Amino acid sequence: MVKYIGIHELQTFLASNPVERVIESLAAYIEEDYLRWSQFEKTARLASHSAVGVIELMPITDGNLYSFKYVNGHPQNTNDGLMTVTAFGVLADVNTGYPHLLSELTLTTALRTAATSLLAARHMARKDSRSMALIGNGAQSEFQAIAFHRLLGIKELRVFDVDPSATQKLCHNLAAYADSGLRIVRANSIAEAVRGADIVTTVTADKRNAVILTPEMIEPGMHLNAVGGDCPGKTELHQDVLKMARVIVEFEPQSRIEGELQQMPADFPVTEFWQVLSGVASGRDSAEEVTVFDSVGFALEDFSALRYLDQQLGDDYVQTIDLIPQLADPKNLYGAAIAGIPVQPSRSPAAVVLA
Amino acid sequence: MVKYIGIHELQTFLASNPVERVIESLAAYIEEDYLRWSQFEKTARLASHSAVGVIELMPITDGNLYSFKYVNGHPQNTNDGLMTVTAFGVLADVNTGYPHLLSELTLTTALRTAATSLLAARHMARKDSRSMALIGNGAQSEFQAIAFHRLLGIKELRVFDVDPSATQKLCHNLAAYADSGLRIVRANSIAEAVRGADIVTTVTADKRNAVILTPEMIEPGMHLNAVGGDCPGKTELHQDVLKMARVIVEFEPQSRIEGELQQMPADFPVTEFWQVLSGVASGRDSAEEVTVFDSVGFALEDFSALRYLDQQLGDDYVQTIDLIPQLADPKNLYGAAIAGIPVQPSRSPAAVVLA
Repeated sequence: MVKYIGIHELQTFLASNPVERVIESLAAYIEEDYLRWSQFEKTARLASHSAVGVIELMPITDGNLYSFKYVNGHPQNTNDGLMTVTAFGVLADVNTGYPHLLSELTLTTALRTAATSLLAARHMARKDSRSMALIGNGAQSEFQAIAFHRLLGIKELRVFDVDPSATQKLCHNLAAYADSGLRIVRANSIAEAVRGADIVTTVTADKRNAVILTPEMIEPGMHLNAVGGDCPGKTELHQDVLKMARVIVEFEPQSRIEGELQQMPADFPVTEFWQVLSGVASGRDSAEEVTVFDSVGFALEDFSALRYLDQQLGDDYVQTIDLIPQLADPKNLYGAAIAGIPVQPSRSPAAVVLA
Repeated sequence: MVKYIGIHELQTFLASNPVERVIESLAAYIEEDYLRWSQFEKTARLASHSAVGVIELMPITDGNLYSFKYVNGHPQNTNDGLMTVTAFGVLADVNTGYPHLLSELTLTTALRTAATSLLAARHMARKDSRSMALIGNGAQSEFQAIAFHRLLGIKELRVFDVDPSATQKLCHNLAAYADSGLRIVRANSIAEAVRGADIVTTVTADKRNAVILTPEMIEPGMHLNAVGGDCPGKTELHQDVLKMARVIVEFEPQSRIEGELQQMPADFPVTEFWQVLSGVASGRDSAEEVTVFDSVGFALEDFSALRYLDQQLGDDYVQTIDLIPQLADPKNLYGAAIAGIPVQPSRSPAAVVLA
């Protein structure tokens, strides 16, 4: 039987596990995996583009476990009441090839992206960072805000979105964090939000070469956490912003195709994230330096997230599904399936209890 | 909600739908899709190899629907009571990127492979073919046997496997077909099974360059349905067998890597299957010609199979699962998932009834 974590299971888990604690744990899993970078068989994700979006498969393996994520990106979906990004993924055993866990990854992607941004900021942002601009207030924005507030010490959030109702939603969802000292400032423009911020997080959705951040907005010492540009033809930064900065990417071959980096010549210098995490390279050299985490999301982060879900969600939060046959005689697929020999119960008792 | 077809659902469906009818319908779906070959965005599958097996992702899209299959191949699994091949797949909507159907594909792969072999044989085997050698009597063998017996007119099956218990199982499972005139001959060697056969189907599992068929076994007019060689380093035919034959492949770039074709020079002439189905090329020119369907399994066939499952399995055979959130406000992922706003019931009533 294959373990299954659906929306219900993850919701239930999150109801008793504070989101910042989950993000912190995810960050530890992600860091652990980045620190063994050379053990992974890595590939740029396999993307299928259409006029309105992209569907991607993101496989990776460390030789012991194999994972892949299915993820889409359709910015116009929100016009029809659908999400821009949905995802699910599978963790499998390399030695048998059997899938072991199937999980929702829509929510988890938002959590793991915030965890990855947090990890990067710990190495790249100035230690005295207290204010963050948050450009793009959609589905992922709260997760970024909570990670940087609760786990990095951000006290002031300067928020902007072209859709005021998205900002309204963000402010509403974060209201409870006033208790822990989070002050939210609604800005009237990107420039206003960015002015004076220590960190700028861009998490916008448009599938086009947008110019969210221009050179004149950038101040010495800023750390730019560029999350939204993650697809060919989908960027957020003016290329001159990259020229003035130290640029860190997750997996260079993929980022050259998908990241802000797609705007730059093939020899534009970048550093891979694992080098920063392992101390081989530094994330920041001075208080004046501008740093950019040109994040597109890499399969390793989903591998880590699936490991986390597999290890940290106990039986109460997991169902089993009959995605794969269990046969008494593994060569008798026909007999088991066609001739009516029972294969297995289709649902475990746990599944029925949770339903 | 995402539609779900597990082992239980497919077993239930097959209990009231004869396997040959299912294979015939699948063949029609597969042919329909091969006949619109140019509409598909095609790619060789993405394989991750280990010492003991392979895990593959097989995506494809026609611009309207997108599908992928996850499939493994681990020949040593049967030693541990596990199957060599397991699979599952997803059908998604290109316009929204949302997954629409998640289905088991282990059983379905055996069915669609038999359907593809049948289609090829209809165009490539001599019309008067009445006997078939079946080399390899494992998980897929009954499906091939039934397809060729019930839908192509094979009356004599000459079977061989290095594992006698696999042959025993095959004979047992096919005993009922004696009523429709199927005679099964257990051969003592590959050569004995092949001698005098009109069609030779090889469906072995070893991940090595095996030489199941050698040139001296091949007789004029034979059609070779080579199913088991489907991976780099995993072949079944001596290369001289290919040299004496007309060779048809599914998708040339993938077959050059994975098929029997991997043994041949890059300019060894082959014809793609869609050309034969559409009449652009012939599958056989004379009664004496030797023909080889160098089948590795192509993503299009799984796309067709998922379309079939989606369209032909009514609500009684389908569950729904909460793999993707359904949100009242698609930008409020945080509010829905973290702040406890109910997202949706985790299982539909139908699911509970079937469980």
